[in-house]
Amino acid sequence: MKKLIAVSGSNGTDENLTEFALRSAEEVGHWIAKKGGVLICGGRAGIMEAAAKGAKKAGGSTIGILPGSKEEANRFIDIAIPTHLSYYRNYVLISSSDAVIGIAGRWGTLNELSLALDLGKPTIVLKGSGGWADILSKKELLKGLKRKPLIAQSAKEAVELAFDLR
Amino acid sequence: MKKLIAVSGSNGTDENLTEFALRSAEEVGHWIAKKGGVLICGGRAGIMEAAAKGAKKAGGSTIGILPGSKEEANRFIDIAIPTHLSYYRNYVLISSSDAVIGIAGRWGTLNELSLALDLGKPTIVLKGSGGWADILSKKELLKGLKRKPLIAQSAKEAVELAFDLR
Amino acid sequence: MKKLIAVSGSNGTDENLTEFALRSAEEVGHWIAKKGGVLICGGRAGIMEAAAKGAKKAGGSTIGILPGSKEEANRFIDIAIPTHLSYYRNYVLISSSDAVIGIAGRWGTLNELSLALDLGKPTIVLKGSGGWADILSKKELLKGLKRKPLIAQSAKEAVELAFDLR
Amino acid sequence: MKKLIAVSGSNGTDENLTEFALRSAEEVGHWIAKKGGVLICGGRAGIMEAAAKGAKKAGGSTIGILPGSKEEANRFIDIAIPTHLSYYRNYVLISSSDAVIGIAGRWGTLNELSLALDLGKPTIVLKGSGGWADILSKKELLKGLKRKPLIAQSAKEAVELAFDLR
Repeated sequence: MKKLIAVSGSNGTDENLTEFALRSAEEVGHWIAKKGGVLICGGRAGIMEAAAKGAKKAGGSTIGILPGSKEEANRFIDIAIPTHLSYYRNYVLISSSDAVIGIAGRWGTLNELSLALDLGKPTIVLKGSGGWADILSKKELLKGLKRKPLIAQSAKEAVELAFDLR
Repeated sequence: MKKLIAVSGSNGTDENLTEFALRSAEEVGHWIAKKGGVLICGGRAGIMEAAAKGAKKAGGSTIGILPGSKEEANRFIDIAIPTHLSYYRNYVLISSSDAVIGIAGRWGTLNELSLALDLGKPTIVLKGSGGWADILSKKELLKGLKRKPLIAQSAKEAVELAFDLR
Repeated sequence: MKKLIAVSGSNGTDENLTEFALRSAEEVGHWIAKKGGVLICGGRAGIMEAAAKGAKKAGGSTIGILPGSKEEANRFIDIAIPTHLSYYRNYVLISSSDAVIGIAGRWGTLNELSLALDLGKPTIVLKGSGGWADILSKKELLKGLKRKPLIAQSAKEAVELAFDLR
Repeated sequence: MKKLIAVSGSNGTDENLTEFALRSAEEVGHWIAKKGGVLICGGRAGIMEAAAKGAKKAGGSTIGILPGSKEEANRFIDIAIPTHLSYYRNYVLISSSDAVIGIAGRWGTLNELSLALDLGKPTIVLKGSGGWADILSKKELLKGLKRKPLIAQSAKEAVELAFDLR
């Protein structure tokens, strides 16, 4: 069975989303496909769409775990799973993945990354991408916690860390 | 986006499961693939495995919405979604499908078919396959209910009904 | 901890709902309270409201596991749990109960009763109340199935069966 | 209907849990009860148990939204809702509450607090209690985010903030 690598990040309404974050998401999608993985994400706009675009362009497959109906999927999603679970779909996404990569992100992304860490999944955050991924890359902040995310300096390194683990 | 057709039916522990039901499930999988659909199912043994086998042999794709972890998937599943949702995964399966075909089945299958009917999804039961699919094909039994399953006499007809609808 | 007894049945939009079914639901609520149990239900109208009314009048407590927000609760609900889970809330309701009593009911009720039986929970159906509770009280229909509902002839007997078990 | 105030925080296995955090949780439970609210929590040990103890001692009611079965509830829980939903139960807890108070906490607590903030629920963190509640009380950390938790300096202030809102 192929590895499912989740990308978690801001949707299209995040005003702080940078070009760097979007470009990195596309690169992450590219490398997931090149390494033979399947991209799994929340299926919507922003970081999710950029990652799905990168995976498709590289010949890979994409899965979108949607909060509502199929119509919500961005155009780079191959398999849409319309859970009709609203926010609970974050759990289906994280439960289904072999590793999770966080890029930028607000409270919804933090909800997914915190679950991944609570479940003990390999969790990688992209330094410099802004939002919660960036906050979680501050080592001194998390010094009291046993489980910590891995910190990647580039899109390629994030995917390498995702595949090295488990 | 491709149509997702769910097959719902007994897992491997149902002592009343017949050769006819298993053969029909394989044929249903075959026709879903031939018509360009994706088979979605609970990902486990019995009817689910037979349907996935039929779809794979015909060159199609298969998704398994698993109650627990990836290891539970049968060998004909391409994309395993390990929800870790236990019985609640029935809902993810039904929510995700464009139409649902019931073959044989006990209480778990009835749980899925009743949800499909409650949600107003096109729901087809295979007459003669035993279990709840067979009970639900007794027209006189359901005469007080507004929403009813469609009754198919063969695997091929079941898939045709699934694609005609919506 | 107090026993949680679920009542599952048609909501207020079921045209086939009879006076007998509603009166029985109220009596079931009454007896659950008198025997020291807590009534747990879907929190809405019809059978759920009648049962909650009966429990409150007899001095008992009521919990409503709602599909959406708190505003959906009928006026006899003490503790509203607004799951925002839509149809998935059926599972929270059944998972939470020590025994389940079915009265009348359409596909949504069948969805709850089938889950209760699949989970091996003590499940009682009220004969003569119409809908799926009545269909499931036909013994010859279920003769191939290992797990079966218990059949009650009256509201009081339904509650007695619910408390005898486990 | 009574207000449901959630308390989210470390369970008993958190080695960093301080006496101050536990005492504060008990006080929070006390004030929730005194103000006529119902304490809702995850039902287990640690912060959850301390809060439930405080509420019971002050004559209040307590609800525990459990990840598994009823046996997991601490002894101060009146109404146990055994969701059998594992980690997904975090969502049922947050969905059900009118306001959420965070005390100490690791990734699981952060999972609940981030959801509360994503849903726009009034969310209060207790400064000085350690763990994620403390990290989230650093204003400079969250300056790029629109939705922010309210910061309480004491247990009593936390409950006052929870009741002022909405």
